[in-house]
Amino acid sequence: MRYEFYYWPSIQGRGEFIRLALEEAGADYVDVARRGKAGVASMMELMTGRRQARPPYAPPFLKTGETIVAQTANVLLFLGPRLKLAPRDEAGRLWAHQLQLTISDLVDEIHDTHHPVSSWLYFEEQRPAARRRTRDFWRYRVPKYLGYFERVLKKNGGRFILGRRLSYVDLSLFQIVEGLRYAFPKRMRRFERKIPGLVALRDRIARRPRIAAYLASPRRTPFSQWGIYRYFKELDA
Amino acid sequence: MRYEFYYWPSIQGRGEFIRLALEEAGADYVDVARRGKAGVASMMELMTGRRQARPPYAPPFLKTGETIVAQTANVLLFLGPRLKLAPRDEAGRLWAHQLQLTISDLVDEIHDTHHPVSSWLYFEEQRPAARRRTRDFWRYRVPKYLGYFERVLKKNGGRFILGRRLSYVDLSLFQIVEGLRYAFPKRMRRFERKIPGLVALRDRIARRPRIAAYLASPRRTPFSQWGIYRYFKELDA
Repeated sequence: MRYEFYYWPSIQGRGEFIRLALEEAGADYVDVARRGKAGVASMMELMTGRRQARPPYAPPFLKTGETIVAQTANVLLFLGPRLKLAPRDEAGRLWAHQLQLTISDLVDEIHDTHHPVSSWLYFEEQRPAARRRTRDFWRYRVPKYLGYFERVLKKNGGRFILGRRLSYVDLSLFQIVEGLRYAFPKRMRRFERKIPGLVALRDRIARRPRIAAYLASPRRTPFSQWGIYRYFKELDA
Repeated sequence: MRYEFYYWPSIQGRGEFIRLALEEAGADYVDVARRGKAGVASMMELMTGRRQARPPYAPPFLKTGETIVAQTANVLLFLGPRLKLAPRDEAGRLWAHQLQLTISDLVDEIHDTHHPVSSWLYFEEQRPAARRRTRDFWRYRVPKYLGYFERVLKKNGGRFILGRRLSYVDLSLFQIVEGLRYAFPKRMRRFERKIPGLVALRDRIARRPRIAAYLASPRRTPFSQWGIYRYFKELDA
């Protein structure tokens, strides 16, 4: 099965959660918008074209045959059983998806630390608000979210977040840890002693041969100042 | 099938999207946390109890037999085919879910108009930020989101957002229109001429016998200043 993957070509963003799943599975996929202007144009066409009966609201989305699936967690719900990265039974699929949707909520909150007031303002125009948001994020939200995932991981034996084998949720948790390390290196270093299970999970994922090869390849977009995770020294007090 | 529904007892919040589906279907359900302190306690127990192998991160969630499903859109994904409020085929279910996840994103942005900086600050402590956020929300986000749903509705013939019969997504769009009317009566009145299809959909939903009966009953929590939608005169300029 060939997958066409569509996402903004220059950022990791939400698309990265899907890329990690495709890469771990060794799936046959094309990162369409990375193929230059024509790729981005065809992405826009699928979103706005008149012929699209079911247009995505925004990237990332996946096309396979005539089916287009959008919304990050929904794409993973679709891919999970196909890539053998999720349980096949309904209860297991819903549980994986529920965890993934909780990760999506966390991702939104991570983004809002540097742009709380408006995405139409520069960071420099919303500094005091970003500082306050970041303070509360690390005081209340990070402990609640990561504490939850640490607890769920432990309940499941500590090796995988669910079931007895790797799922796309494990890969997404890897990306959460990596991103928080990039955006908040000092804060994260202090916090990590509270989430030993997640840190060990992150390490195991990083060592998986396909993930390691992907991370070392040009297919992995580097972290930057334009994605979900951005580094501002003053927010990492 | 008996459903136990769990959500904060005094607000509509995200739970309302699920309540509307249960009510329209005439489902046999109990709104557990509304049954006084014991109800709230059993909700908390399901989230934090040691015995829970798959604890929800937060309400709303649904329990049926031994299965617990959390995350609003995930609960609707689960309920959809069971309540005959979603297509049965995979592509149809994913499309309905994709639209619902886009509604979830919009709901987050609606909430953030009055609390952009932090949920741990009162509105009065983040007034200028709320004004700026609300301005951009109505300038860029409402036209983009509601314009998208209007377009999808029209592509589908105008009567339902997907397929040939009512789905939970139609019910959620009703709740979006109702909520924006509550929180931003003046702005919404001006904007509605751009979304005639959604307004007509809202009217048709309001006239459905079970929905009309529900809205007139004490089971419908009134809008208030504690949910997603809150009215502040200065944000409704």
